[in-house]
Amino acid sequence: MGLFTRDIKTMNDLFVHQLRDMYYAENQLVKALPDMAEKAIDQQLKQGFLTHLGETKMQVQRLEQVFQMIGAEAKAVDCPAIDGIIEEADEIIGEVADKAVLDAALINAAQAAEHYEIARYGSLVAWAKQLGRNDCASVLQKTLDEEKATDKKLTVLAESKINLRAAS
Amino acid sequence: MGLFTRDIKTMNDLFVHQLRDMYYAENQLVKALPDMAEKAIDQQLKQGFLTHLGETKMQVQRLEQVFQMIGAEAKAVDCPAIDGIIEEADEIIGEVADKAVLDAALINAAQAAEHYEIARYGSLVAWAKQLGRNDCASVLQKTLDEEKATDKKLTVLAESKINLRAAS
Repeated sequence: MGLFTRDIKTMNDLFVHQLRDMYYAENQLVKALPDMAEKAIDQQLKQGFLTHLGETKMQVQRLEQVFQMIGAEAKAVDCPAIDGIIEEADEIIGEVADKAVLDAALINAAQAAEHYEIARYGSLVAWAKQLGRNDCASVLQKTLDEEKATDKKLTVLAESKINLRAAS
Repeated sequence: MGLFTRDIKTMNDLFVHQLRDMYYAENQLVKALPDMAEKAIDQQLKQGFLTHLGETKMQVQRLEQVFQMIGAEAKAVDCPAIDGIIEEADEIIGEVADKAVLDAALINAAQAAEHYEIARYGSLVAWAKQLGRNDCASVLQKTLDEEKATDKKLTVLAESKINLRAAS
């Protein structure tokens, strides 16, 4: 959809637009996560990023499944928000000199991405239900649950180990 | 701090950098919220944005208080993430033709901003505690609690009224 064209006329249009925004975002994260895994020093964090990369690829497939269920073309629209979140992650990776501190910064960057997705998928699930598409809501809910679980795992890892090491 | 200068050498440097990132983000939201309030049709949503504008101004002051507590200069660093989130909000405002649907999109945009702040303040509180600055953690926790409460209020408003109206 073009800029300022007022192409979104119904709740269903908004739903499709937001699905396409997330389709772009998830694909950008598929590209960004291997770099974050490579930069991480802590093995548990590195493995966490790789595990989430696998989940993110599955989340791309779930979006394709929802596009198919509603008969909409699976295509991406630009998502300046995720671009900004990833740009900021790249910047911080370039600015941190100490490797233990970098792990703390990487967790923070990953949690910014997770929370972005939690916000968007939360709306997508609610909108799907409102549109009478509980079948789509149920598929999207799986992704929402995964994002929330990943965010919690990152908090536990940060507070049990990574922050302690970064501050020492 | 410059780009790729490796100026962040300690956890404390990371903490200060992230405070400055949020100082920029909160100030951008102070500029963005009046426009969102103006665009909202639902009176409760409009009032919600104005109430949160007041809270956001207080959150800017809390950051200035923390800068003072740690003896760091209160200055902003660019935050591409919040710029992207606000740019995406502006785009969606320009693309939605129907006013009831726009209210649903505005809530979604606001929740993306709230979740960004929840992720960042969550790390800031944890880092402050790790650095032995429970006094700073306590100030930042107030903001974190406000962001979480705002996010919940927006969810309730969306699911009890705004989405229903947008889909009808």
